[in-house]
Amino acid sequence: MNQRDVAEVNLHDLQVSDPLIGKYQHLVTEVAIPYQWDALNDRNPAATPSHAVENFRIAAGRAKGEFYGTVFQDSDVAKWLEAVAWSLCQAPNPDLEKAADELIEVIAAAQCGDGYLNTYFMLKAPQDRWSNLAECHELYCAGHLIEAGIAFFLATGKRRLLEVVCKLADHLGTVFGPERDQLHGYDGHPEIELALTRLYEVTQEQRYLTLANYFVEQRGTEPHFYDMEHEKRRQSCHVKSSGVPSTVKNKAYSQAHLPISEQRTATGHAVRFVYLMTAVAHLARLRQNEQQRQACLRLWQNMVQRQIYITGGIGSQSFGEAFSSDYDLPNDTAYAESCASIGLMMFARRMLEMEVDSRYADVMERAFYNTVLGSIAFDGRHYFYVNPLEVHPKTLRSNGIYSHVRPVRQRWFGCACCPPNIARIFTSIGHYIYTPCSDALYINLYIGNSVAVSVGGHTLRLLISGNYPWRDEVEIAVESAQPIAHTLALRLPEWCSAPETTLNGEPVNCESRKGYLHIHRTWRQGDRVKLSLPMEVRRVYGHPQLRNLAGKVAIQRGPLIYCLEEADNGTELHNVWLPAESQFSLIEGSGLFSDKILLQADGARLQHTHSEERALYQYDKVPGQLQLQPLTFIPWFSWANRGEGEMRIWINER
Amino acid sequence: MNQRDVAEVNLHDLQVSDPLIGKYQHLVTEVAIPYQWDALNDRNPAATPSHAVENFRIAAGRAKGEFYGTVFQDSDVAKWLEAVAWSLCQAPNPDLEKAADELIEVIAAAQCGDGYLNTYFMLKAPQDRWSNLAECHELYCAGHLIEAGIAFFLATGKRRLLEVVCKLADHLGTVFGPERDQLHGYDGHPEIELALTRLYEVTQEQRYLTLANYFVEQRGTEPHFYDMEHEKRRQSCHVKSSGVPSTVKNKAYSQAHLPISEQRTATGHAVRFVYLMTAVAHLARLRQNEQQRQACLRLWQNMVQRQIYITGGIGSQSFGEAFSSDYDLPNDTAYAESCASIGLMMFARRMLEMEVDSRYADVMERAFYNTVLGSIAFDGRHYFYVNPLEVHPKTLRSNGIYSHVRPVRQRWFGCACCPPNIARIFTSIGHYIYTPCSDALYINLYIGNSVAVSVGGHTLRLLISGNYPWRDEVEIAVESAQPIAHTLALRLPEWCSAPETTLNGEPVNCESRKGYLHIHRTWRQGDRVKLSLPMEVRRVYGHPQLRNLAGKVAIQRGPLIYCLEEADNGTELHNVWLPAESQFSLIEGSGLFSDKILLQADGARLQHTHSEERALYQYDKVPGQLQLQPLTFIPWFSWANRGEGEMRIWINER
Repeated sequence: MNQRDVAEVNLHDLQVSDPLIGKYQHLVTEVAIPYQWDALNDRNPAATPSHAVENFRIAAGRAKGEFYGTVFQDSDVAKWLEAVAWSLCQAPNPDLEKAADELIEVIAAAQCGDGYLNTYFMLKAPQDRWSNLAECHELYCAGHLIEAGIAFFLATGKRRLLEVVCKLADHLGTVFGPERDQLHGYDGHPEIELALTRLYEVTQEQRYLTLANYFVEQRGTEPHFYDMEHEKRRQSCHVKSSGVPSTVKNKAYSQAHLPISEQRTATGHAVRFVYLMTAVAHLARLRQNEQQRQACLRLWQNMVQRQIYITGGIGSQSFGEAFSSDYDLPNDTAYAESCASIGLMMFARRMLEMEVDSRYADVMERAFYNTVLGSIAFDGRHYFYVNPLEVHPKTLRSNGIYSHVRPVRQRWFGCACCPPNIARIFTSIGHYIYTPCSDALYINLYIGNSVAVSVGGHTLRLLISGNYPWRDEVEIAVESAQPIAHTLALRLPEWCSAPETTLNGEPVNCESRKGYLHIHRTWRQGDRVKLSLPMEVRRVYGHPQLRNLAGKVAIQRGPLIYCLEEADNGTELHNVWLPAESQFSLIEGSGLFSDKILLQADGARLQHTHSEERALYQYDKVPGQLQLQPLTFIPWFSWANRGEGEMRIWINER
Repeated sequence: MNQRDVAEVNLHDLQVSDPLIGKYQHLVTEVAIPYQWDALNDRNPAATPSHAVENFRIAAGRAKGEFYGTVFQDSDVAKWLEAVAWSLCQAPNPDLEKAADELIEVIAAAQCGDGYLNTYFMLKAPQDRWSNLAECHELYCAGHLIEAGIAFFLATGKRRLLEVVCKLADHLGTVFGPERDQLHGYDGHPEIELALTRLYEVTQEQRYLTLANYFVEQRGTEPHFYDMEHEKRRQSCHVKSSGVPSTVKNKAYSQAHLPISEQRTATGHAVRFVYLMTAVAHLARLRQNEQQRQACLRLWQNMVQRQIYITGGIGSQSFGEAFSSDYDLPNDTAYAESCASIGLMMFARRMLEMEVDSRYADVMERAFYNTVLGSIAFDGRHYFYVNPLEVHPKTLRSNGIYSHVRPVRQRWFGCACCPPNIARIFTSIGHYIYTPCSDALYINLYIGNSVAVSVGGHTLRLLISGNYPWRDEVEIAVESAQPIAHTLALRLPEWCSAPETTLNGEPVNCESRKGYLHIHRTWRQGDRVKLSLPMEVRRVYGHPQLRNLAGKVAIQRGPLIYCLEEADNGTELHNVWLPAESQFSLIEGSGLFSDKILLQADGARLQHTHSEERALYQYDKVPGQLQLQPLTFIPWFSWANRGEGEMRIWINER
């Protein structure tokens, strides 16, 4: 295995012009980021309190008060800062940059002399630093701060926060490591690993890579660090519980039950899993480590072949926000956290960089256009944490199996990991569109954008346009002034059965390798590649071992999964049937759905009357009659923008 | 409303001779009662510890040690004693009676001078008596002890335990009541109400009825007792929790959110609900209270028309072991506690006594022949606490929504309410077979038995025989030496569409009222009523609002619900389809199933190959092909007697 020569798109050189994603990026920049800033500063009385900025101000000696929030409250601020940084690449905003600069000064002022920086421990338990890695997210918070420092440096050139986080990382390098006087531990919630790997890339300081790798390789080894630190604390725990806390007992929750090299299935907390694997894939490439690569391939495969929802959601249970087991993907009790699908995109990105294969980009696209797009409301101010595939609002409040499910997006959360994560994925989406390698520029996502990438000292400029994912045609125009010999590798999406490509009007019959069409030539200004990706409406069926999908069908067009909503189709969606022979027609949406394509088909509904007086069970005859009903399907990502109502993706078929 | 003149069958005068239920009664008497005695005395190292008898021994000063177990551990002993008492009516057993007598002496020795008796508080928190009614089950344990005292007196004529419990009840009468210096509270777990009502019937002491009624009527009134006692305790709680404990916060859990007269739906903890309503129905009749009667009718109706499983299970969620809301009856995450169906039989019995109507007996029969029969293994030593309608064993351990479900019956439980409850319902089943009223002897269940009941000073003797629920024919033979004019009222089961009756060979065309065929005559020795209850195999369909049953069918024959098990039909039962036109044939079971009738029908299975490598989602075509497969259905009550395997009641129909 050779280290592939992979670059990262400079987000200053990429401008999203996509009608759909551009609108979301605008929404995030104009609405979500200011809204979240208000939330982090507790200026929105209707939202759950945050106190996250105030914690830093108190730690910096600029305010009086006590720490408030979860042990990982700092990370909300860091993720917001990262989102701001990437947004500044797209849309300079002096006021926002000033607010961020001021916040960074507060953070810098809060940092301890030795580099330590975590407001929970500084304000609440200074004597307890690094005593409870299993539960307390200290390295997790550090990781997000490091990511923010990198992003802010790349976006603005300002080194202030980068220096803070390097000092923090150097502090970690003294505390953690293989030496006898160092801690041999690692965080319950992976994140530091991917952050330090990134920090190595930006600073080229080998020690950060070494420490990232130490954390990865130390995980799951025996004697187990979590048992030892638990004993050392005399068994005191952060989360009050009777007996050994679940993070110590259930090590799979943190992917700490075994060394990565011995793990066989995606397990435990889904966000932790993908954050960890993002780092492992990155390290595998940078360190050319075959064992790590094999772990990535094996665990990716298990996840996508056995444990992923059609929406790109992962983690099918609320218990531990975790994976369940192979083929257990319930629709209504699904967890499928927004952050998990964001982390899945990160993992997929690093897999593509490790060894490009459209399978990774297919999953990335599925997660992005379904769960991630769906996690934010059209208004930019409401978010889903949990993303079910089926909702019956009336029942949510009465049955505890649904206690994690909300029928509409929420203003904020006590555990507010998702909103700023959503903001940073939209503002940094340019990192996912392309994988720039020395052998080719891989185009993973057909989000409209203009980009400049460096190819052997020259600058290759492309403009991708079209109206993806609504329309079949994608155009890739070369806009470089100088001719450049290079390969453009176009992903052929798995959902498209008959893609066609022309170059300047002529059919292209190039080789397609691992799902990418490789077009090598000396590209000249005005060259135009047209990719036609016919978007038939497709019926999707589950693997026969998916218990909850027997007899059911889902509807997909392009990368988008569609669903039925009560607002269009009435209640009792479980009584709706889609005949196997029904044809679909495309409808231009209007109002809330303008610029979106809806689908219609003839369906059937079990009509019944006087149901309230009817016995609960009836002999011999199905109660009711099937009657024709036209069905309207909307893209699932747009559900719950019209208030509470039933929704389902998997429909009965007959 | 007039108080109906209702008697109770004397269990000394009733001998169960039913092939099926007799076998179960024998199993309970010969195996379960000794087995449970060992469990209560911790002589079974493989079972979860109990310590329940030892707690009484320590409290009586006959052993040294500390209390161990739940706050309601005493009730296991009481329920076991009650089961023993009823079993002695059927099968005298001097050794067992001696063990019970000795246990009663221990209990009597443990009783405080003032009548108080509860080993948890006596040994662990004597200063905390009656300080936490919401959580601590003191009155619940007292209630079960009272029931045991009554049963032991009725069974043996011995007054020792009856005197103990009368002294206890008298003590309660000083502590609780409307006076200023009395506590105005009631137990979080109803039970004392039904026990005191029974105690009134046996002793004819009005004060017990008054106190029972006080507990019922006080429930849910404002200012709320649970809030006040919580404040009075300075908010300390029994179950450690952050903030207000759920029993105080969620008053519906204990049916304490509103006075009974204002409650509209069956809510909260299912066992608590049916125990409470058993008392309310009993009180409504004895006190001729129309408001209580209306509450019974209303809440019964909600329960059976919206919230009961086809198996007679109630309480569809593990969260709070509770009802969910109307029409929310998931199959795989069902709770449907064994005790709840036993309590449902008790409630149905009191409803029948209040106003006879076969609707109540139909539900009683459904609960008995399905959930209650199913709650004990063929070996008598393993029990179900939770009774799901669908099980996929492989997934139970990996998804927290199934954390309460066990794929096979268990030896014992930390909370061991079910096993002795199962024992006492089988040994006292005679109380449910008949409702002896002054106007008629109502026959509710067609369990083979011989009985003697008093009718106007004479003794009417009947022998019911047949091979219910396997065979159509039930014979009721009169065996009294003297002619007796009376009405026999035969329940016509709701599942039977064409019952036929003959009297001494001649067709009977008597009036049927509220589901009972009333035959009045002067009965003479040798009279024979033959009731033919044709048991076609019937397909059952759910109410259209039952989301989880859309497109599915269940199979019923007589009162028995059938199911598919993996042992007969292979795995992946979700891929099995029952064609709408398939005919059923009856099969005589063998081996474990000897003396049982199984069903066979032509079904179809979605066959698929190489499924492990197949993508999780597939376009355009259902993966696999339907192929014929003969299906074998077993009575659901007999599932999981052949080890772990998939099971489901509701099958896909096409």
